[in-house]
Amino acid sequence: MSQTNQQWGGRFTESTDAFVQEFTASVQFDQRMYRQDIAGSIAHATMLAEVGVLSAADRDAIVAGLEAIRGEIERGEFTWSVALEDVHMNIEARLTERIGLAGKRLHTGRSRNDQVATDIRLYMRDAIDAVLAELRRLQGGLVELAEREAATIMPGFTHLQVAQPVTFGHHLLAWFEQLKRDSGRFSDCRARLNVSPLGAAALAGTTYPIDRHRSAELLGFSAPSENSLDSVSDRDFAIEFCAAGALLMTHLSRFSEELVLWSSAQFGFVDIPDRFCTGSSIMPQKKNPDVPELVRGKVGRVNGHLIGLLTLMKGQPLAYNKDNQEDKEPLFDTVDTVLGSLRAFADMVPALRARPERMRAAAQQGFATATDLADYLVRKGVPFRDAHEIVGKAVRLGVDTGRDLSAMSLEELRGFSAAIEADVFDCLTLEGSVAARNHFGGTAPHQVLTACARARAWLGLS
Amino acid sequence: MSQTNQQWGGRFTESTDAFVQEFTASVQFDQRMYRQDIAGSIAHATMLAEVGVLSAADRDAIVAGLEAIRGEIERGEFTWSVALEDVHMNIEARLTERIGLAGKRLHTGRSRNDQVATDIRLYMRDAIDAVLAELRRLQGGLVELAEREAATIMPGFTHLQVAQPVTFGHHLLAWFEQLKRDSGRFSDCRARLNVSPLGAAALAGTTYPIDRHRSAELLGFSAPSENSLDSVSDRDFAIEFCAAGALLMTHLSRFSEELVLWSSAQFGFVDIPDRFCTGSSIMPQKKNPDVPELVRGKVGRVNGHLIGLLTLMKGQPLAYNKDNQEDKEPLFDTVDTVLGSLRAFADMVPALRARPERMRAAAQQGFATATDLADYLVRKGVPFRDAHEIVGKAVRLGVDTGRDLSAMSLEELRGFSAAIEADVFDCLTLEGSVAARNHFGGTAPHQVLTACARARAWLGLS
Amino acid sequence: MSQTNQQWGGRFTESTDAFVQEFTASVQFDQRMYRQDIAGSIAHATMLAEVGVLSAADRDAIVAGLEAIRGEIERGEFTWSVALEDVHMNIEARLTERIGLAGKRLHTGRSRNDQVATDIRLYMRDAIDAVLAELRRLQGGLVELAEREAATIMPGFTHLQVAQPVTFGHHLLAWFEQLKRDSGRFSDCRARLNVSPLGAAALAGTTYPIDRHRSAELLGFSAPSENSLDSVSDRDFAIEFCAAGALLMTHLSRFSEELVLWSSAQFGFVDIPDRFCTGSSIMPQKKNPDVPELVRGKVGRVNGHLIGLLTLMKGQPLAYNKDNQEDKEPLFDTVDTVLGSLRAFADMVPALRARPERMRAAAQQGFATATDLADYLVRKGVPFRDAHEIVGKAVRLGVDTGRDLSAMSLEELRGFSAAIEADVFDCLTLEGSVAARNHFGGTAPHQVLTACARARAWLGLS
Amino acid sequence: MSQTNQQWGGRFTESTDAFVQEFTASVQFDQRMYRQDIAGSIAHATMLAEVGVLSAADRDAIVAGLEAIRGEIERGEFTWSVALEDVHMNIEARLTERIGLAGKRLHTGRSRNDQVATDIRLYMRDAIDAVLAELRRLQGGLVELAEREAATIMPGFTHLQVAQPVTFGHHLLAWFEQLKRDSGRFSDCRARLNVSPLGAAALAGTTYPIDRHRSAELLGFSAPSENSLDSVSDRDFAIEFCAAGALLMTHLSRFSEELVLWSSAQFGFVDIPDRFCTGSSIMPQKKNPDVPELVRGKVGRVNGHLIGLLTLMKGQPLAYNKDNQEDKEPLFDTVDTVLGSLRAFADMVPALRARPERMRAAAQQGFATATDLADYLVRKGVPFRDAHEIVGKAVRLGVDTGRDLSAMSLEELRGFSAAIEADVFDCLTLEGSVAARNHFGGTAPHQVLTACARARAWLGLS
Repeated sequence: MSQTNQQWGGRFTESTDAFVQEFTASVQFDQRMYRQDIAGSIAHATMLAEVGVLSAADRDAIVAGLEAIRGEIERGEFTWSVALEDVHMNIEARLTERIGLAGKRLHTGRSRNDQVATDIRLYMRDAIDAVLAELRRLQGGLVELAEREAATIMPGFTHLQVAQPVTFGHHLLAWFEQLKRDSGRFSDCRARLNVSPLGAAALAGTTYPIDRHRSAELLGFSAPSENSLDSVSDRDFAIEFCAAGALLMTHLSRFSEELVLWSSAQFGFVDIPDRFCTGSSIMPQKKNPDVPELVRGKVGRVNGHLIGLLTLMKGQPLAYNKDNQEDKEPLFDTVDTVLGSLRAFADMVPALRARPERMRAAAQQGFATATDLADYLVRKGVPFRDAHEIVGKAVRLGVDTGRDLSAMSLEELRGFSAAIEADVFDCLTLEGSVAARNHFGGTAPHQVLTACARARAWLGLS
Repeated sequence: MSQTNQQWGGRFTESTDAFVQEFTASVQFDQRMYRQDIAGSIAHATMLAEVGVLSAADRDAIVAGLEAIRGEIERGEFTWSVALEDVHMNIEARLTERIGLAGKRLHTGRSRNDQVATDIRLYMRDAIDAVLAELRRLQGGLVELAEREAATIMPGFTHLQVAQPVTFGHHLLAWFEQLKRDSGRFSDCRARLNVSPLGAAALAGTTYPIDRHRSAELLGFSAPSENSLDSVSDRDFAIEFCAAGALLMTHLSRFSEELVLWSSAQFGFVDIPDRFCTGSSIMPQKKNPDVPELVRGKVGRVNGHLIGLLTLMKGQPLAYNKDNQEDKEPLFDTVDTVLGSLRAFADMVPALRARPERMRAAAQQGFATATDLADYLVRKGVPFRDAHEIVGKAVRLGVDTGRDLSAMSLEELRGFSAAIEADVFDCLTLEGSVAARNHFGGTAPHQVLTACARARAWLGLS
Repeated sequence: MSQTNQQWGGRFTESTDAFVQEFTASVQFDQRMYRQDIAGSIAHATMLAEVGVLSAADRDAIVAGLEAIRGEIERGEFTWSVALEDVHMNIEARLTERIGLAGKRLHTGRSRNDQVATDIRLYMRDAIDAVLAELRRLQGGLVELAEREAATIMPGFTHLQVAQPVTFGHHLLAWFEQLKRDSGRFSDCRARLNVSPLGAAALAGTTYPIDRHRSAELLGFSAPSENSLDSVSDRDFAIEFCAAGALLMTHLSRFSEELVLWSSAQFGFVDIPDRFCTGSSIMPQKKNPDVPELVRGKVGRVNGHLIGLLTLMKGQPLAYNKDNQEDKEPLFDTVDTVLGSLRAFADMVPALRARPERMRAAAQQGFATATDLADYLVRKGVPFRDAHEIVGKAVRLGVDTGRDLSAMSLEELRGFSAAIEADVFDCLTLEGSVAARNHFGGTAPHQVLTACARARAWLGLS
Repeated sequence: MSQTNQQWGGRFTESTDAFVQEFTASVQFDQRMYRQDIAGSIAHATMLAEVGVLSAADRDAIVAGLEAIRGEIERGEFTWSVALEDVHMNIEARLTERIGLAGKRLHTGRSRNDQVATDIRLYMRDAIDAVLAELRRLQGGLVELAEREAATIMPGFTHLQVAQPVTFGHHLLAWFEQLKRDSGRFSDCRARLNVSPLGAAALAGTTYPIDRHRSAELLGFSAPSENSLDSVSDRDFAIEFCAAGALLMTHLSRFSEELVLWSSAQFGFVDIPDRFCTGSSIMPQKKNPDVPELVRGKVGRVNGHLIGLLTLMKGQPLAYNKDNQEDKEPLFDTVDTVLGSLRAFADMVPALRARPERMRAAAQQGFATATDLADYLVRKGVPFRDAHEIVGKAVRLGVDTGRDLSAMSLEELRGFSAAIEADVFDCLTLEGSVAARNHFGGTAPHQVLTACARARAWLGLS
C-alpha cells in the first residue's frame, strides 16, 4: 500500500500510476479554496461537538490546528502535495500530522462529496460579492460621466448608420441599464446557491446524529439543502454563474466595440488615456485601445467556459462522478476574467474624455433629423407613412447635392410638401431634436438628468 | 419604386434584389407573434388616443381593424407576404387596406425597433408562463411517485459504482429539487423582461407626447423601460431564457440518462410503458426508450441556441442592427423544445413502474453497507480513517471470495477488528442502513415523506 | 396493434402515445432526403438482385416503384405521414402500397440505421459540392475586384487604428485566402465522409450474402465503411461539416464587419448598391447594409449548431441511440445558412463600389508612413529600436500640432535625427510606401497583380 | 518614459497603468513558445544576413546570443518580466542586454504580428506531431486487444438495449476507426497551417529586400503565406485544431462512457486495473473508474475552447487586434488536454481485462438472436416485414414467460410460423449469429481478423 493512497487504502492491490495520479489530481487548482475548506471544517467540527459526536477537546485541537494551517498557507509555508490529490486531503493530512488522532476524527459524518460542494459554494458566494462590488463601482463611474455629458450631442446609430441625434449621457445610461440587469442576475444566483450541502455526506446522508441546520447557520447559509443526492450532484450554481458572466462579458464586449470605434481616427468621439493603451513594436505612431480590445476578446473564454460546463453535466447520472472535478478551472477562470474586466473598466471609464466637437460634426452629417421632419409633417396633418415618403425624397436630393436637410431653403423643402412652413427649421436643429424626445426613457437632457437621479438612488448614492 | 419597398421608399433608387428580399425577410418565423403584435398595437393606439395624438374615431377603426385581422389569421384566411418582410408590416399593410388613412397613423410615435422588442417580450412572458405550468405538472408527478416509493430500496451510485443504499423516493426528490431551481430561474427571467420598450421608438424616443407608463400598464408590464437606446438593443431576456432552458434540459438529460440505464436489461430498475417507446424496423425484440433518449439529445440544440445568441450579440454596437433579427428562430425553437420535453416527461413520469426486486438485488451487491460498518467502528471508538482502512480489508476479502459483508461470520469480521461485536449485523442490512440516515435531507423513509410534504407545500398542493 | 406501429408491431402491447408519436417523428425535416433515400434503395435492390437475394422481377418492380414515387414527391402529390415516423418508412410504405409483396422485400439485409447513415452521407456530398461551387463564384468575384483595385490605396488597420497604407486589391485577396482554406476544409470533409455504410444493417452487418463494395460503387462512394458498429454510430461528418461551416461563417462575419464599417458615414470607403440594402420604417434617410449585418449575425446559428452536435454526441455509447435523430435539423440549417450567405456575398461583391478618394484621405491621416520613416532611418544606419523611438517623438509633435509627418519641414525632422536628409520625403508618400513592400505576399500593386494571377490559376480560370 | 514601455516609447505621454500592464500581458502563458520564438529569430537573422540587411557578424552574435538564452531558459535561469509583456520582448530585451546593438537590429523587417504568427504555427506543428504519435500508440493497443478478443462474444446494443451479438474485437475496431478519422483531421490541419507568415511584418510586408521563401525553408514550412494581411489576422489553424480536438475528445468521451458502464457491477464486462482507478474517502468498498470519467468530462473544456475561439474571431476587422492574444490559453489547454487524455488511454487500453463470461451471459439475455430468426424466415420465403411481425410475437411470449427464443420448443416456435423447422436452432446460437455476419465490415471473427490486418497495415506495423 503506497503512502499516496492512504485515504482509500484497504481495498486496493496496486497503487496509482504516477501519470494517472497527476492527471486526476486537482490540488493545483483547488488550493485556492483553502480558506473556505478550513471554514467548512471548523463549522463541521463545532457542530459535531455540539451534538456530542466529537469531544470538546478534539474540537478545540481541530480548530486550533486548522487555524494554524491557514496561517502556514498564507505565509507560503505550506507544502502542497499532488499525491494527496486535492485541497481537502492536503489540509486533513497536515492536520493529522499536527494534532494526531483528533485529526482523523474530523471526517466523521461527512465525505469529500459534501465537503467540496460546501467549499465551492462558500467560494462562489465570496466571488459574487466581489463581482457585485466592482459592478457598482463601474456603474457609479457611468452615472458621474452621464451627468457631465447629459447635454452633449452625438449621433445615435442603427445599423452603424447615423439615425437620430442622442445625448452622450443617454448612451452611457444604456450601459448602466445593462449592468443593472447583470447585477440582478448575480444576486439571484447568490440567493439560489446559498444553501448548505454539509451533511449530505457521500450521497445519502450520514448515520451520525448531525444537525445540518446548525452547520448551515455557522457558515452563513440560508438553510441546509433539501436533498442529499441533489446536494452532491448539483452544479447548477457554476453554470448559472457562468451564464451571468457570459451576459456581463457580452455587455462589456459591446461597450468595448463602441470604444474601439469611437477612438478610431474615423470616429474620434472619445480619447482613452495613454495608460490604458499600448503602442506598436514596429509602428511608432500607434496608440492602441488594448483594454477594450482585450475585454471584447475575453467574452470568448467565458462563453467557452459556460458551454464547457453545460457539456460536462450533460447526461451524468446521479450522484457524484469524477467528471465533476472539471467544474473548477472554468469556474475560477470565469471569476478572474469577470473581476479583471470589471476592474479595468471601472478604472478606465471615469478617465474617458469625450470630444464633443467630433460628436457634433458627425451628428450633423447623415440627415440625423430626418425623422424630426417626418414627425413635423405628421403634426401638420400628413399621415406618417406619407410623411416618411416625402422626407425620403428630400433626403435623396440631399444625398445627390451633398447637403443636410437644414441646409435646404424653405422653397426647396416646400417643393416636397406644401405643409412645410418656416417653423420647420426649429425641428431640424440638433438641440431641438434631442430636447423634443422628452418622455420617460427618452434622450432629452432633462430626462437624462432625472434618469441619473434614479440611477443614483438605485446605487444607494446621495 | 417597387411596391415591395413601400415602407422605406423615397430614398432608394433601385428595389431590393429578389433573393436578398427572401434572405432578409423574417415573416416566415415571426408571424407566430401576430397575437402579441396586435395586442401591442391596440395598446399603442389606445394610449395615443388618450394623449390626443390620435382621434377617438381613428383609434376605434384601428382597434376594430386589428381585431378583424386577428380573426383572419386565426381562421387561416390571412395571406402572409415575404415582400412585406415581417409580421409587423404584414399586419399594418392589411390594416391600411381595410381601414385606409387611419391605418397609416398607427405607426405614429413608434418604430419597428420598439414594436418588435415589445412583441417578443409579450411572447416570452406567455412562453414562460407555459413552461412554469409544465414544470409544476412534472414536479407534481414526481412527488406522487416519491410518496409511493418512499421506502423502496435501491442502490445509490457514485461513479456508477454501488455506493450506499438509498430509497427510490429520495432519488426522485433529487430530480424535484433540480426542477425547483429551474422554476426559480424562469421566474426571475420573467420578472426582468417584463418592462415595456414601447415608446423607445427607433432608438431615442419620440417627439410625440406619449405616455409610456400608460401603454406599459395596458400591456401588463411592470414599468416602462428606463432607457430608449437600451430598449431597442437589449436581447438579454432571450439569452437568459435560453440559459435557463439549457440548465433545465441538462437536468432532463441526466434524468433521461438514468431512465435509459434503468430500463436496460443490465439494470432493470424501471419499466417505461410501451406507449412511450418505439421498436426496431429490423430487430423484432427491441423496445427502445425513445422519449428519454430524444430528450437527452435535445439538450444539444438548446445549448447550441444559447451559444448562438451569445455569439450573435458579441461586439454589437448600439442600438439596433439587422443581426438582431437572428434572435427569433433559436429562441422560438428553445421554447418549443423545452415545452415539448417537459410535456413528454410530465406525461411519462407518473406511468413509470419501479421493479423493487431488481433494485433490491442490485443494492445487495457491491458492499453497499461498507460505510455503515465503518461508522459502526467509529461509534465503537475507532478513528474514522482507521475504520475506513479496516473495512477496506474486509471488502477485499469479500471481492476475493465473492461474498457480501453481511454474509461473513462474526469471527471473520472480528479478524479485521476486535471492536466488532454481534450487533454489527443490524447495521449491515439495507433497511437498517437507510433508516439510519435520518436527518434533514437524508434518505430515511421518514425523511422522504416529510420532504414530500414540504414539496407539496411548495407546489401549493394539499 | 395500431396501424401506425406496423414497422415494429409484434412485441408491443399498446400503441404509441399520440404526442410521443409527433414528438419523436422526423419526417417533417428528413423528407428533404427523399432523393437520396430512393437512390440508396435502388442501389441496395440492384446489389441484392446481383447476389441472388432478390429476383430480377422484384428488383424491377422496386426500381420502377421508387422512381414513380420520386415523381409523386416532386410533383407534390405524395402525402407524408407523421405516423410513419420518417422519410424511409413513408417511402417504403408507399412502395408496398404500389407494388405489393416485393416492396416488403426491399428491407432485406439492411436496417434503418445503415439506411439513414447512407442517405445523409449522400445528401451531404451534394451539399458540399454546392458549397464549393458558391465558394468559387465568390472567390472569382474577389479576384476580379482585386485586379481592378490593385493600385487603389487605403489605410491598413491594426487595432482599428491606421497602421500603414495598403492597396484595396491586397485587402480583397486576404479574403480570398480565407476562402481558399475553407474550400480545402470542405473538400477534406467530403473525402472523409464518402464511404458507404450500406450493409452495416442495425449494427453488426447482416446474414445475407451482400456485396458491400458493389452497393458502394453504385452510389459513387469511394469504398464501403470498415466497421459496421462505427458506421451506424458515426456522426463525425456532420460535426466536421459544421466546424468547416462555422469557420467559413466566421470569415464572412469579419468580411461583413468591414463592409458595415466601410459603408458607414465615418469611413465611407465603399458603397453597397441599394438592392442589397433596406431602409427604415421610421427614419426616411436610412440605407442599411442589411446583407452584411445579417450574415454577420448568422455565424451565431452555425456556431450554435456545431456545439449542439458536439453536445449531442458527447458520452453516447455505441451503436445507435435515438438521440442521433437530433443531428439533422442543425445540419440542414447549416447547409442552408452557408449556401444562402455565400450566394448573397457572391452576388454582392462584384457590385461593391470603392470610393478611392475617401480611402486615400483616410490613409493620409494617422501617420500611416511612420514605419517607412523608421525603416528609412535603419537604412541610414540607425538600429531599429532607436529609429522607432525617434519616429515616435516626431509623431508626438504631429499629434500636438495636427500635422502629418509629410507636412513637416526637413529641419523639423532633422531635429529628431541628423540622419534624416532630403530624400526622406520619397518614403513619406503613400505610393512610395506601398510600392516599397514589393516582396511575395506584400501589398505593392505589382505583387497584388501576380497574386491575382496565382489566384486565377488556383481557380482554374484563364 | 517608463522603462516598461521601451518598446513603443516615443509617442506616449504617460506610462501604462500597473494593473493594465498585468491584465494585458501574455508572458505568463506564451513563454512556453520560447523554443519556437528563438528558432524563428535565428531563421530571420540568417535570411537577413543572406540578403545583406544584416552583417555576418551581427548574425553570428544574434544566433549565439539566442542559443545562450535558450540555455538560460532551459536551466531555469531566465527571469521572465511581465513588464516586457510577452515572450518576444522578454527574449529580445535579454538579447540586447547580452550582445548590445546587434540585438536591436534583429527586429528589422519584421513585427511582433508576424513573429507571433510564426511562433504559434511552429508550436502547433510540434503539438500535432505529438498528438499523431499518441493516437498511433492508442490505435496500436486497440488492434492488439482486438486480435486477442476477435472471437469473444458480447451483446451489441442499440438504445442501450441488447440488439444482436457482436464480437468484442469488432467493437474495439469501431473505436479504431474513429481515431483513424481523427488522425486524418489533425494531418489535414497540419498541412494547412504549415506556411510561413514571416515577412508579413505588421500587416503589409516590409520595405526591406527580404526573402520570404528562404526563411520559410529554414523553418521547414512548405511555403511562405500568400497574403500579408491574412497572415497576421488568420487564426484558422487554432480553431481547426480545436475542432479536431473536440471531435477526438467526443470519441474518447463515448469510449469512456462505455468503460464506465462496462466496469459497473450491473454490466461487469471489463476490469480496469487498480492503478487507473481511485477509491473513496468515505466508502471503503469503492473502486472508481476515474480515468474514463475524467476524460469524459474533459470533452467539455475542449468544446468550450473551440467555441471560445470562434467567439473571439467573430466580426473582427482585419488585420491584427489585441483580442487575438486570447487565442493562446484555450489552444494550449486543448493541446495539453488532448495529449494527456490520449496518453492515459494509450496506457490503460492494453491493460483492460475482458470478462467473457459476463459478456456472454448478457448476450444470452435480451433476445439477441431475434433478427437471426427473422432472417431465417426470410430465407424460407417469408417477406421481411412479415417475418419481423412473427418474431415479435415470439419475443412477446418470451418476455411473458421469461425465456429466450433458443429455450422454446420447436412446436412452440412453429406455432408462430409453419416455415420454422428443426434447423432453426443453428441460427439461434450466439456463435452462429456472429459467424453469419461474414462480409466486409461485419462482426464475424474472420472479418475482425482481416480488419485487424488492414489496421496494422494502416499503422505501418508488421
